[in-house]
Amino acid sequence: MTEEKKRGITVKKTENFSEWFTQICSEQGAQLVDIRYGIQGFIVHRPWAMKVLNRIYTLLEQAVEADGHEPHLFPTVILEDNLTKEAEHAGFIPDVFWVTQAGEHTLEKKWALRPTGETQIYPMYSLWIRSYNDLPYKGYQSRHTTFRHEMTTRPFLRGREFMFFETHDVFATHKEALTQIKVDMQIMDEVIRDKLKVPFIFFRRPQWDKFKGADDTYASDSLLPDGRRLQISSTHDLGHNFAEAFNITFHNKDGKEEFGWQTCFGPGIWRIMACLIGIHGDDTGLILPFDLGPQQIVIIPILKGNDTDEEVKTYCEDLKTALKQYRVIIDDSDNSPGYKYNHWEMKGVPLRIEIGSREAAQGTITLARRLGEKKTTVKQEDLNNAIITLANELDTDIGRRAEAYFKDRIKHAQTKEELIHVIKNHRGFVTVPFCTTNNEGAVCAEHIKADTGGADVCGVPLAHAQEPKKDDVCVQCGKKATVIVYCAKSV
Amino acid sequence: MTEEKKRGITVKKTENFSEWFTQICSEQGAQLVDIRYGIQGFIVHRPWAMKVLNRIYTLLEQAVEADGHEPHLFPTVILEDNLTKEAEHAGFIPDVFWVTQAGEHTLEKKWALRPTGETQIYPMYSLWIRSYNDLPYKGYQSRHTTFRHEMTTRPFLRGREFMFFETHDVFATHKEALTQIKVDMQIMDEVIRDKLKVPFIFFRRPQWDKFKGADDTYASDSLLPDGRRLQISSTHDLGHNFAEAFNITFHNKDGKEEFGWQTCFGPGIWRIMACLIGIHGDDTGLILPFDLGPQQIVIIPILKGNDTDEEVKTYCEDLKTALKQYRVIIDDSDNSPGYKYNHWEMKGVPLRIEIGSREAAQGTITLARRLGEKKTTVKQEDLNNAIITLANELDTDIGRRAEAYFKDRIKHAQTKEELIHVIKNHRGFVTVPFCTTNNEGAVCAEHIKADTGGADVCGVPLAHAQEPKKDDVCVQCGKKATVIVYCAKSV
Repeated sequence: MTEEKKRGITVKKTENFSEWFTQICSEQGAQLVDIRYGIQGFIVHRPWAMKVLNRIYTLLEQAVEADGHEPHLFPTVILEDNLTKEAEHAGFIPDVFWVTQAGEHTLEKKWALRPTGETQIYPMYSLWIRSYNDLPYKGYQSRHTTFRHEMTTRPFLRGREFMFFETHDVFATHKEALTQIKVDMQIMDEVIRDKLKVPFIFFRRPQWDKFKGADDTYASDSLLPDGRRLQISSTHDLGHNFAEAFNITFHNKDGKEEFGWQTCFGPGIWRIMACLIGIHGDDTGLILPFDLGPQQIVIIPILKGNDTDEEVKTYCEDLKTALKQYRVIIDDSDNSPGYKYNHWEMKGVPLRIEIGSREAAQGTITLARRLGEKKTTVKQEDLNNAIITLANELDTDIGRRAEAYFKDRIKHAQTKEELIHVIKNHRGFVTVPFCTTNNEGAVCAEHIKADTGGADVCGVPLAHAQEPKKDDVCVQCGKKATVIVYCAKSV
Repeated sequence: MTEEKKRGITVKKTENFSEWFTQICSEQGAQLVDIRYGIQGFIVHRPWAMKVLNRIYTLLEQAVEADGHEPHLFPTVILEDNLTKEAEHAGFIPDVFWVTQAGEHTLEKKWALRPTGETQIYPMYSLWIRSYNDLPYKGYQSRHTTFRHEMTTRPFLRGREFMFFETHDVFATHKEALTQIKVDMQIMDEVIRDKLKVPFIFFRRPQWDKFKGADDTYASDSLLPDGRRLQISSTHDLGHNFAEAFNITFHNKDGKEEFGWQTCFGPGIWRIMACLIGIHGDDTGLILPFDLGPQQIVIIPILKGNDTDEEVKTYCEDLKTALKQYRVIIDDSDNSPGYKYNHWEMKGVPLRIEIGSREAAQGTITLARRLGEKKTTVKQEDLNNAIITLANELDTDIGRRAEAYFKDRIKHAQTKEELIHVIKNHRGFVTVPFCTTNNEGAVCAEHIKADTGGADVCGVPLAHAQEPKKDDVCVQCGKKATVIVYCAKSV
């Protein structure tokens, strides 16, 4: 019981989000990761995190499979020659870890630990895709990791090895590729917004902020509680760039050879997890949507050390059996009820059932939900409805809170001065009239970044983009505004 | 339709298993892997294989979780210092790939691509385990890969990167550790024998054939159709060896510090897949148990190019909807019915439904099963029962065939001459009286290996071990036999 004192988060999320995040991830918090592995940026994922992460993976797998994607798995290493074949993409080289030795021997050609999948997957697509009958070709890799030599690292935000999920599609036409980008947006909506209750905007990035080798990059940005923007997915319109570099062609219906149009979609598993932790959690711990709980319901027997205890224990076991459609745990450890409440609140278990001698004698159940004040006592026949109601209420509240926060973090500025002022006093997105997201706008974006102490031009939302008003001018250069862009500081 | 001619296996499994295996894995077969990735021993897993492999992973995950294991995930790389901490285990060093560079920089300390998990997991266990309350500690890693610098490589049999699954347990007593080994054997029985229909024997290995760093190694050996033994799982009784090297201790109930007793269990995902492919498949392709089919049922519309076609198509769609509890695909491609039959037989889809105008008009369904001669036509109301019956028959037949083959491959020899003779003319296991599986028996085992052209002493079965008869003597040294061991040549 000496452990009881060590657990718990010692800072307020609203006052010091960074430290709060560190603590909730750690041993004293929800025990999600361990950073004591001994190699910077390479962390250990502990069971509670793995169960949530596996659920996120499963939801994404189901979504992309419903959209016709098939799973494949490629090696962890990539030949240097392939990595450099697409000229722009070769820009990854400085960030790559290299395998150079096998036992005592030096490899003739060194291998890169994969920084992303394109250059390992597309040489094979070139072999597999032959005719228009093979298109669209939709593949995905899940539950694997990638590697980048980052200088600063933090769990779920930036790692040297981090969890990955990627689809890679080839189409006969650019139109189909553009449609796929909207489908990817829908998948983000269905999984990340609707199920995980994480809000975001799906942007078309400015031309100067594209993925190395893409014609266009689309990316979802969410906001952490400190108002900093976090990119949680990207979809790249790769055009013909990789198809030309890796010779991905097909014979069309007329028998002519054409290059395939490619897209790839990468929801950032780690960063989605960071949002789930950061946006929903509070000062007593994680808060998880009902579907995401590794345990959805914890049953806590309240024992008195007298002869009603056996009855209470049996009643708890019977309840667990009756609730077998849910993930349920009975905490029958030696700890005090108060310790147990704290423990499972820290873990974010959505519902708690408390069973004492009164409940056992009367055949009732006392329920409490995470992110709720009051307890409810119901009869056995009403238990299932009560669970469904409380679970829905919890999910609705989590979602509403998150959306309200997100909405509140979007302000508008009409001039550069206003922008600087708002960025200084407000954290989140600021919309401004802007000259262009084509490459000519890059200089304006640089000035804005310098003068606001780091705010980026994030792009224009793919859905519901605002049109500039007739007289709107770019906040930087004063030229006629062609777009309303979002600006924000990034993690 | 020009593709039709290229597909299919051109050798008989009984005549040239090695080539049959290569072909069934490849483009011309069931399209399971692609070995054209460009780095020896690093292969691409294609969708059909991934779906079967994911199902195997899921079955194992469910089994070890039911036994109290929790998932965790460790990095792909291991510090050299950790890898060498346990003296015997350091024997892995010559087989290890090393990461030595980050971008242009040389790493101060090189990292190994993990050859197995012990030396990365146990330093963390040392931090996490404090008291007897933390025991037993049961963790597992799934859906990841490990790396070894093998000289010869083959898909699913030996790779430089291959799929891994590993549990790592810590107990307060050696007795509990020994019990866990029996539980691991039960998991192999429940998943691999009962669900995958792959037969094996769970051996206690001779002392000279232990895992580097183990006190005892237990391992399952199956037999490929060419009679060669394939190890498909191992469970190591690690004693205190790693606990001492990595300081995994706990305070017992008296407050005294003790070392933990450790075991680890690794079903070989790849090799289990090799058995599934090799043991069940035939000259027309894969044969999969009903539960393992990425598609369990294929519906093939037989179109006539007349006005009944639309009715047939609608009927197929309705059937698919009616069978939504199964994984069902309608093959509505332009290929001929014959091509489709061959295609889905190659893929090992357990059941085929054929729907022509007669079926559509009469409201009947014609069913055929893989590994069966005759077709059955049933009424719609009998369809579900027919599917259950055919699926069960298929599974039973697959299992019976496999067990019959396995049983037939076990012979007995009473003398060295007999052993040499049987090994020469028969492929599979040969049981012989043997002096001892303690280290003193190593010399006899070496002689046997040399004189039989490669047969190993595999050990003694953990369950149902035969006792030597009173006068039995070791086939090699002539000393009194203390054990009946199994000998076999290995893959």
